[in-house]
Formats: sequence, structure tokens, C-alpha cells
Amino acid sequence: MIKVSVMYPNTPGARFDHDYYRDKHMPLVKARMGAACKSYTVDKGIAGGTTGGPAAYVSMCHIFCDSVEAFNAAFGPHTKEIMSDLPAFTDQQPVIQFSEVVVG
Amino acid sequence: MIKVSVMYPNTPGARFDHDYYRDKHMPLVKARMGAACKSYTVDKGIAGGTTGGPAAYVSMCHIFCDSVEAFNAAFGPHTKEIMSDLPAFTDQQPVIQFSEVVVG
Repeated sequence: MIKVSVMYPNTPGARFDHDYYRDKHMPLVKARMGAACKSYTVDKGIAGGTTGGPAAYVSMCHIFCDSVEAFNAAFGPHTKEIMSDLPAFTDQQPVIQFSEVVVG
Repeated sequence: MIKVSVMYPNTPGARFDHDYYRDKHMPLVKARMGAACKSYTVDKGIAGGTTGGPAAYVSMCHIFCDSVEAFNAAFGPHTKEIMSDLPAFTDQQPVIQFSEVVVG
């Protein structure tokens, strides 16, 4: 199992509509990916670590798939539609990474 | 529910012992936190996003707790022991953040 983490930087003044992200954007991603998206999680940044500063990321999602290839096959054809939805909820460019799920 | 994300930067040449992290460090964290740690996940970075570059983080863990206060109460007394274990598996300083679990 792999996880695709999409992490939106919490730059000062970052715009992020958490409701739209939860209610519109992520359901769109799930709908387009279909069964290849096994599940996904959504996080809302609260605070940074021991220093008590701001969270590094205003929001994160993690999309679970069988493999990187499965993700690419399901997401690829819809990349333009999904990415063009970003301005509807944020002015941030996400940091994206693929990870192996070591402990799930 | 909240999630504490501990993200180890994937700087060039970063040292990270994934086996130790999975088999020793995270079980230590769980043992010290007890029931306050509802569960945790561990990720191993594979690759970056659409550019195909390296993953931003060589490894991440996400620790699930009822609240920030519950995390702090359970982790706090063991901070020194747990943090002093870091050199056993990495030379990186993690980015840590607290998040609200919006979709779990």
C-alpha cells in the first residue's frame, strides 16, 4: 500500500477553505479516482511542535492506493480538472510526496 | 481526534534507519504514551510529486490522540528519553505539527 500526501504550506496569510476542501475538492478526487483510491484522510493544521509556533501545513490529505502505478493510472487522466479546482479553496501550491505505508 | 505528524526532512545524504524506526523507536513511543496513543502510522518516502524528484520527507509518523492536551500529558514526561533516541536512527531534526483529524 502507498500513500500520496498532499501538504499545503501554512505561509503567512495563506488562504485555505477547509469546508470546501472537505466537502467539494476531496470528494471530487475520490469520484474521479474511483476504486483506485482505497481511502483518504484530511488534516487541518492546528499548531507547530514543541516551539508552539504555527503548523507547517495549513492542511494535508493522504490518499491510499495499492501502488504508485495505480495512483497514476487513476489520477492522471483527471489531473487537469482536479488541479484547476485548487484556486477555489487555496492560493498555496502543495508539497506532494509518495510514501510506502510501513505501519498503516 | 488529533494527529501529531512527525516529518523527517529528506535532505541530501540524510541518514535514516527505517528498520530501527519501525521496530524500536515507534514502539518505544507507544509504550511510553500508553493508551493516550490511540494508534500511529509510519510512512517511508518514495518520491516527490509530479516533478518526479525526491520525497520531501524521508519518513513520517502520525500519532493519533483524543486531544493536544492528552498528547502533551502522555508524551511530556518522556520527551527527554524519546528525543534522545533520535540519533540512533537519524541525523535529521523533524518538523512536528498538530492537526485536527477532519476526515479519519
